[in-house]
Amino acid sequence: MAYRALLKPLRPGTRVASLWGTRALSEHRFKPEKVAVVTKTTRYEFELQRYRYAGLSEDDLKQLLAMKGSSYSGLLERHNVHTDHVEHIVDSLQREGMQVRVLRRREYDEEAVRWADAIVSAGGDGTMLLAASKVFDKDKPVLGVNTDPERSEGHLCLPVSYTHAFPEALRKLRKGEFRWQWRHRLRLHLEGTGINPTPVDLHEQQLSLDEHNLAHRISTEAQNRREDGAVSCPHLLPVRGLNEVFIGESLSSRSLRHRGKPLKPHLTLSLHRASYYEISIDDGPWEKQKSSGLSICTGTGSKAWSYNINKLFEETVKDVLAIGQTQAGLDVPLTQDFVETVTKEYNESLMFGPEENRLFFSIREPIVNRVYSTSRQRGFASRVCVRSRCWDACMVVDGGTSFEFNDGAIATISLNEEDQLRTILLKD
Amino acid sequence: MAYRALLKPLRPGTRVASLWGTRALSEHRFKPEKVAVVTKTTRYEFELQRYRYAGLSEDDLKQLLAMKGSSYSGLLERHNVHTDHVEHIVDSLQREGMQVRVLRRREYDEEAVRWADAIVSAGGDGTMLLAASKVFDKDKPVLGVNTDPERSEGHLCLPVSYTHAFPEALRKLRKGEFRWQWRHRLRLHLEGTGINPTPVDLHEQQLSLDEHNLAHRISTEAQNRREDGAVSCPHLLPVRGLNEVFIGESLSSRSLRHRGKPLKPHLTLSLHRASYYEISIDDGPWEKQKSSGLSICTGTGSKAWSYNINKLFEETVKDVLAIGQTQAGLDVPLTQDFVETVTKEYNESLMFGPEENRLFFSIREPIVNRVYSTSRQRGFASRVCVRSRCWDACMVVDGGTSFEFNDGAIATISLNEEDQLRTILLKD
Repeated sequence: MAYRALLKPLRPGTRVASLWGTRALSEHRFKPEKVAVVTKTTRYEFELQRYRYAGLSEDDLKQLLAMKGSSYSGLLERHNVHTDHVEHIVDSLQREGMQVRVLRRREYDEEAVRWADAIVSAGGDGTMLLAASKVFDKDKPVLGVNTDPERSEGHLCLPVSYTHAFPEALRKLRKGEFRWQWRHRLRLHLEGTGINPTPVDLHEQQLSLDEHNLAHRISTEAQNRREDGAVSCPHLLPVRGLNEVFIGESLSSRSLRHRGKPLKPHLTLSLHRASYYEISIDDGPWEKQKSSGLSICTGTGSKAWSYNINKLFEETVKDVLAIGQTQAGLDVPLTQDFVETVTKEYNESLMFGPEENRLFFSIREPIVNRVYSTSRQRGFASRVCVRSRCWDACMVVDGGTSFEFNDGAIATISLNEEDQLRTILLKD
Repeated sequence: MAYRALLKPLRPGTRVASLWGTRALSEHRFKPEKVAVVTKTTRYEFELQRYRYAGLSEDDLKQLLAMKGSSYSGLLERHNVHTDHVEHIVDSLQREGMQVRVLRRREYDEEAVRWADAIVSAGGDGTMLLAASKVFDKDKPVLGVNTDPERSEGHLCLPVSYTHAFPEALRKLRKGEFRWQWRHRLRLHLEGTGINPTPVDLHEQQLSLDEHNLAHRISTEAQNRREDGAVSCPHLLPVRGLNEVFIGESLSSRSLRHRGKPLKPHLTLSLHRASYYEISIDDGPWEKQKSSGLSICTGTGSKAWSYNINKLFEETVKDVLAIGQTQAGLDVPLTQDFVETVTKEYNESLMFGPEENRLFFSIREPIVNRVYSTSRQRGFASRVCVRSRCWDACMVVDGGTSFEFNDGAIATISLNEEDQLRTILLKD
């Protein structure tokens, strides 16, 4: 019987045709004993913290927000919607007999990941990225629940119906009515001179005066130099990009001084200063470029920021078609429907599957003029190398962690099967 | 004779058909007595300053740059090219009997502008923007000379031939072989609650702990409230946008703390946090949007950042045409030439003249999903109003000056003839 074949142990990632509706395989149940629930910080909590720093009370907050035309009650309401959903998730998990730890951003760490059999993110896509950022084990499943379906796209989360009916999701998981989705992630190597592999957590925005002290950097370089004077070996950075890596010029606070001491750079993307770098696709020739920055994404990320960088609007598509047909001497009626169809097809071509073993690079606002040019504005690849020629640039992973990326540094972005993130695809 | 008519006093900005080759009109000579020459800071100077802060010598700088694969001698060479050009400009002006003051960024101020009969910017487009930023008088001409033609586009500067032959430019100016070019600039009004009309000079990156103290803001709001409780009147900001105004979410350092005190925000553009705002074009209906930001430019600026935001690449145009023709059942050969022609025409449609009395808005990477949409991604207008719904956003003028633009603030961007900048169009 076909069932016998299905009962053989499956290698993770093996796709089996008819999982939907088959009897669940022992490897295919999802019934963790210990679940870490990572929750987002709501805007209400953020504003409260911010105003508390200034020594204001909750009443002051209410008043200030009202003066700004913002709705304190609106913020509080959304905060409550979120916390209600978190409670619902936690209850549902506990009713299934699971041990649950609820963790905020600052509390979520490698120890929590080791403790848990599975991670649930309760928030939006940002919280899912946070959850994934501490998981390096292919066997540890991460599941996202969208706690703000009215306002959050949640493309990394379960369908919104499960937000209100999480027990239903758990039931399906228990019965094996799902499949594993192995999302590829990007790995980063950094090498060259003057590099600093210390990650900066953008959400925490910690200040540490010493870390970017120039003398420190010099001594790091001294340590990295081998006897023969060659530069350091590539560092494999302790992060994986689930969505994308973005490389761009930043207005580093390194040139900012406070009381005579330099400040640690935090993420500041230069508005007006273009990024200068060299790029090599799939070990091809190096090309010098100047642009607003470079995005390298996975299939997962192709629906996120990369999509927004590259998508076209109907007015643009209509203009291009109009010029094209005039040049070709044609006269096709450019109806609303026609333009919509072409636009939709074009935009869909920008997206690809999270399990596809390739990455997509796109250059944001390339500067092409008398002085600079670019051969390809975007494309698929297996490997991208970038050599910084920037004054003060950074590499930002999933919008959450940044690394210095200055003149002399070389980054290699690639894919490795080991880095896949195990997520869940539930039948809707 | 036609000359008699031409000799009548002309109102500034009046276009007279055959200025080229006519006898120069008295109003039409350019022979200032006092000229302020504004010079840029070269990268070499920047690096020197930066390393001096860390207590390093010029030898250390050489060594560090070499380790980074940068060329110290290259930087120094370009620095010398620039300073040679500045000398050439200054000599040429002095030989014509003009008094000259050479001013670096920090030394260039309103007093210098008042003293001078004309301003010459010696650098690239950035230096021209700096020069223009202190000029509010329609009668004060500003002239740009590109001191780095190899590497700088210089679209705001005189043609590059004059960089090496500045006396030739002066000769034409003396003889009236030029015309005035009145470049429109944007004016900004700011109103609403909790606004802070204090400009931050991004190039200087000054820190001032008190300015953004929350209590200060509260007292400002208290002062701004009229007896009847209404909010403050619109402030006309002391800047004019020669290229563009950009509005976007920033990762303000306000949430950063150093030794317990909040830091003044400086320009930091959020990589990942989208900007939320409402926009009204030409007093039309308000539309809620979410995007990477909003650019509003002049004809001058339509060749700058706005162009880079909106331009299309051949690969994109080719893809659109290919999809379009498949949908329409056609089979036009999409040759390289054909695609180039269509792309060029499309991109040229993004640019318009500096003297045109209209502005162009474009929304950068609009986020269109289950939750947000946008009716028009770009277009021409006379007036744009934006209401911030951002956590921490700013309005940046010509990449050099930024203003807070948070939840509750309303900006109105418009054109006024008074704000025009008087520049020079030399025959090439």
